[in-house]
Amino acid sequence: MSFRGIMTYYRTIRLADTDAAGVVYFAAALSICHEAYEASLEQSYINMRTFFSDPNVAIPIVYGEIKFFAPLYSGDQLEINLFPKQLTDSEFEIKYELVKVAPNAEKVALAQTRHVCIHPNPRRRSPLPDLMVQWLDHCATPEAVDI
Amino acid sequence: MSFRGIMTYYRTIRLADTDAAGVVYFAAALSICHEAYEASLEQSYINMRTFFSDPNVAIPIVYGEIKFFAPLYSGDQLEINLFPKQLTDSEFEIKYELVKVAPNAEKVALAQTRHVCIHPNPRRRSPLPDLMVQWLDHCATPEAVDI
Amino acid sequence: MSFRGIMTYYRTIRLADTDAAGVVYFAAALSICHEAYEASLEQSYINMRTFFSDPNVAIPIVYGEIKFFAPLYSGDQLEINLFPKQLTDSEFEIKYELVKVAPNAEKVALAQTRHVCIHPNPRRRSPLPDLMVQWLDHCATPEAVDI
Amino acid sequence: MSFRGIMTYYRTIRLADTDAAGVVYFAAALSICHEAYEASLEQSYINMRTFFSDPNVAIPIVYGEIKFFAPLYSGDQLEINLFPKQLTDSEFEIKYELVKVAPNAEKVALAQTRHVCIHPNPRRRSPLPDLMVQWLDHCATPEAVDI
Repeated sequence: MSFRGIMTYYRTIRLADTDAAGVVYFAAALSICHEAYEASLEQSYINMRTFFSDPNVAIPIVYGEIKFFAPLYSGDQLEINLFPKQLTDSEFEIKYELVKVAPNAEKVALAQTRHVCIHPNPRRRSPLPDLMVQWLDHCATPEAVDI
Repeated sequence: MSFRGIMTYYRTIRLADTDAAGVVYFAAALSICHEAYEASLEQSYINMRTFFSDPNVAIPIVYGEIKFFAPLYSGDQLEINLFPKQLTDSEFEIKYELVKVAPNAEKVALAQTRHVCIHPNPRRRSPLPDLMVQWLDHCATPEAVDI
Repeated sequence: MSFRGIMTYYRTIRLADTDAAGVVYFAAALSICHEAYEASLEQSYINMRTFFSDPNVAIPIVYGEIKFFAPLYSGDQLEINLFPKQLTDSEFEIKYELVKVAPNAEKVALAQTRHVCIHPNPRRRSPLPDLMVQWLDHCATPEAVDI
Repeated sequence: MSFRGIMTYYRTIRLADTDAAGVVYFAAALSICHEAYEASLEQSYINMRTFFSDPNVAIPIVYGEIKFFAPLYSGDQLEINLFPKQLTDSEFEIKYELVKVAPNAEKVALAQTRHVCIHPNPRRRSPLPDLMVQWLDHCATPEAVDI
């Protein structure tokens, strides 16, 4: 299914992601989820540089969470699956499934972020730009995924 | 109340905490919460170096979440209040209230982490070490705080 | 000497600064130096939020280096001494001495950054703003420090 | 030349790499260089998890530097070329050339790290492990590269 090709992000755990406890620092895993979101936007031809510095539109994260089932170590290869979903005309959420690829596929974490479109100055809610709505439409999964 | 003195952590937002959108990167705020947790453990004379590298005991974070009410900028001064609570003999949670100090006190975010004590090799649940139980007892708030 | 009070920054090593090798991740130590620079600017009443997002003036780092003499661990308490020096009307450098406070004062690293003032759009060299020149004057050390 | 295939690392700049000044945070660029080093070791079948947590051998970075020629923005695609070189039986350096791929190939930064092999407890110099020497041999460039 072409969906997988578009919405899956591959990432190897790097030393900078880990801490002295020997495993991935918990907040770094959320950062990896955000990378997956950025990679997905790029595949829809959204320019990251202008997107994140537009003076008229900002889409800050208002909520983030992550749940771990297993530790992650330097060198671990991850597959991150994204499940974005528009909630209102100004808001969407993304669910993330983090799967360790080897030695056996193992779901190691689930995460979620919620994003609200605003006009930054003064800060007030604003409809999502067309490109984001197109991206959300493009990513819509045919059925609910229970993560 | 002596509680405040022990459980409040002060932190100024630094450039490294921010991103090109001009505000604090969402995952960096969770990292700041973890700093507050570490500072609190230190005040109970728990040695951070040995605590995080003990081969027999690890207390990984199994869950983290954060909810933002307002953006944070470079130079913003934060007060982070911690509300730790033991859940079982091997598990505890911490709630965090992030308050921007100036110009007016403003609650900018709420966060939560859940921590499970394990024996790392092989990984299995293990009772929290005495020092952690003492820290949790010491931090126990007289009444539930609704955050 | 009042100099010390102004130009010394205190920082405890946090878990997020470390990596799975058990010590501070090398690039994180440079980030700690930058924090010290920011703290110093703040003490000269330079507003960090506007300073780092001014559309007409930017002072990017064009060079950074760090040399380690000893490892740093979670919980280590550092004193960072800054030695800023103006080089031209558009350029300055800062030297940093990182000293581990306990159990004995021990110089653990030396670092350096070089900063060039530019007009961002189009990018061209530009004289340092008055506030920065004042900060540099204020920080000027009476004699050369060999670091 | 097959060399390029082995020693070149591709990396897109992510939001987490940037700061409120709108460009890559200087220390983050050094972190990206380290990722390239890790990716290169992996291609020589060096296991990252055990490599960074070996109780008998550590190869800390004792020196790092970076020089920027141009700013880097979210979404920029980088090619990082590595030039490792053994210096003594316990020490090596790596030079890094950071090239922005589009719109035109542009050298944006040069970096360098120096690594010393030690036995961690007590910390004393120790010969590089065979696998590292093989990696260094494998990477040796036929002629000096002036970076």
